[in-house]
Amino acid sequence: MAEEFVQISTGEALTLGKSLLEKAGYSEDHARTITECVVRAQMDECHSHGLYRLISCCELIERGKVDPSAVPSVEDRAPAIVRVDSKRGVSLAGFEAGLPKLAEKAKASGIAAMAINNCFHFSALWPEVEAISDHGLVGIAMTVSHAWVAPAGGTKPVFGTNPFAFGWPRPDKHPFVFDFATSAIARGDIELHRRAGTPLPEGTAIDAEGKPTTDPEAAVGGAMLTFGGHKGSALSAMIELLAGPLIGDMMSAESMAFDDGARVTPLHGELIIALDPESFLGQATAVNLKRGDALFDAIEAQVDAIEAQGARVPSARRYVARARNEKSGTMPVKPNVLEELKARAKAL
Amino acid sequence: MAEEFVQISTGEALTLGKSLLEKAGYSEDHARTITECVVRAQMDECHSHGLYRLISCCELIERGKVDPSAVPSVEDRAPAIVRVDSKRGVSLAGFEAGLPKLAEKAKASGIAAMAINNCFHFSALWPEVEAISDHGLVGIAMTVSHAWVAPAGGTKPVFGTNPFAFGWPRPDKHPFVFDFATSAIARGDIELHRRAGTPLPEGTAIDAEGKPTTDPEAAVGGAMLTFGGHKGSALSAMIELLAGPLIGDMMSAESMAFDDGARVTPLHGELIIALDPESFLGQATAVNLKRGDALFDAIEAQVDAIEAQGARVPSARRYVARARNEKSGTMPVKPNVLEELKARAKAL
Repeated sequence: MAEEFVQISTGEALTLGKSLLEKAGYSEDHARTITECVVRAQMDECHSHGLYRLISCCELIERGKVDPSAVPSVEDRAPAIVRVDSKRGVSLAGFEAGLPKLAEKAKASGIAAMAINNCFHFSALWPEVEAISDHGLVGIAMTVSHAWVAPAGGTKPVFGTNPFAFGWPRPDKHPFVFDFATSAIARGDIELHRRAGTPLPEGTAIDAEGKPTTDPEAAVGGAMLTFGGHKGSALSAMIELLAGPLIGDMMSAESMAFDDGARVTPLHGELIIALDPESFLGQATAVNLKRGDALFDAIEAQVDAIEAQGARVPSARRYVARARNEKSGTMPVKPNVLEELKARAKAL
Repeated sequence: MAEEFVQISTGEALTLGKSLLEKAGYSEDHARTITECVVRAQMDECHSHGLYRLISCCELIERGKVDPSAVPSVEDRAPAIVRVDSKRGVSLAGFEAGLPKLAEKAKASGIAAMAINNCFHFSALWPEVEAISDHGLVGIAMTVSHAWVAPAGGTKPVFGTNPFAFGWPRPDKHPFVFDFATSAIARGDIELHRRAGTPLPEGTAIDAEGKPTTDPEAAVGGAMLTFGGHKGSALSAMIELLAGPLIGDMMSAESMAFDDGARVTPLHGELIIALDPESFLGQATAVNLKRGDALFDAIEAQVDAIEAQGARVPSARRYVARARNEKSGTMPVKPNVLEELKARAKAL
């Protein structure tokens, strides 16, 4: 690890996060679910969703947007739909509250959906699809964000960074998981580039005049681009609709209007779909997968075919980081992030 | 319309297709569903899925792979899952057989899935998500194909072209629909370039040595690339799993092994998901949408925001072509395609 990072132990990271968030005003449940999520991301060296997000969680309270002690309610909306009202709390407590019902419904019906409404959302989606795979279920998750991203061929923001995640259970192994922004770059990475004073990769943003730019400040004043041209743009449009009006929640433009310059994490909804292989296949293969099961062999064959040619399986880098940091019981953090968190904890 | 096309009337196209397919050995149901689908594609000037596909449907019989009179069976697999066994027929008759049950289940449960197994598949997916939107439902469809596409960072084919389609109903308008291959180019377009002797776009394929190529023949001997780098590659991997082992059907590599050099359209499965906005929202907004409904306003606002900046909404070009050709009652076809179809019909 380069000296640009310092190490913090898992226990210290959890204690620092929870105590900071509780001092800032979050309920025990919010402080715990948020801290566990950002510590998991930090442990995977997924810095853009790691400990530094605790700063924006504090700002979310300071700017008067979030209800830091909201208790989510879980509603049985339809045989295969569970709806969670996060009541302007953070999405993570809502996800935790609704997950058992989602898993139950997916196993009973074969496929089920969970709508989390009215939540502030800032976290990566892979912890959620991982949690779904722990139930032996296939998971898909998506959210809108703020209107920062121009449609293909356009110059003005319409879409959010609209992340999309997928998880597929593997026995005795971490699940096959991917989680990507449909923007060409994650918003969190733009912020990290801005803080570090480094240029953005080419092809990720345009300035206020619609011209390509690598300047993070100019990108913030202009628009981000989607990945993959018109196909990525179409996916982003789909996510706007599925995680917005389908579940009766805001689209990215509405979320941004609600933010009204406060520049906090978006308030909106999240759509999660869980599929039960056992129901599809009519046989018990999902939870207790073993070699010889078609479902097991299929994913292993795919992973082998990708890795045998030197290509990378999604999340592989995260899982390697996780194994290393779980073993050492510590994780690398940017020193300036750690200092700011400690200073905030002391000041509260 | 340039002179590279000749016009054929809708009636003549339907008669030619049905009579050719019935003479070739297809049942009335297969001949009708296949012909209606390719004529719709031709009408939308979606040439790669249009009338020329009738040639490969004939080859499918000649090469002894398809059961041309298979009658699909519909199974109620789980409360929210319907499974159609196409029994080695073409997918389209299976889709038609299962759709009413899928719609019924989606409305009863809020979300439902249809697995079409054991089907030869060559058609575009947009006619299917359009048909789902006619029920006031949101539709998602995907299939694997043959292993022609290398994963991001790799050089050897693992994935199929793995198309993904989405449809969202709009009142008094064609639905918001996209349908794209997760490969950087559609397989059908490679075939059209090969026939026309024109080069492929850059960045769509590699040759047998893993080097970039624009030669259609070299691409066929090498591998196609996914769109959008590692994100497109991740989506393609997801489709392999969802439309393959999740529904107990072949992955692209297995489908290609089954093909065993016959070079016919892939035998495999298809996964379709339908979501019912009414169930999600708890109010009647889906089928009889009108201005003022949130669901209606959301899609219209999104379309307006995209079009106002001169960007293109997916399927817009198809819908313009459809309107033009519906008005004239004719559609443009490549003369060599029409000649081959007529010659085949005469020879049978």
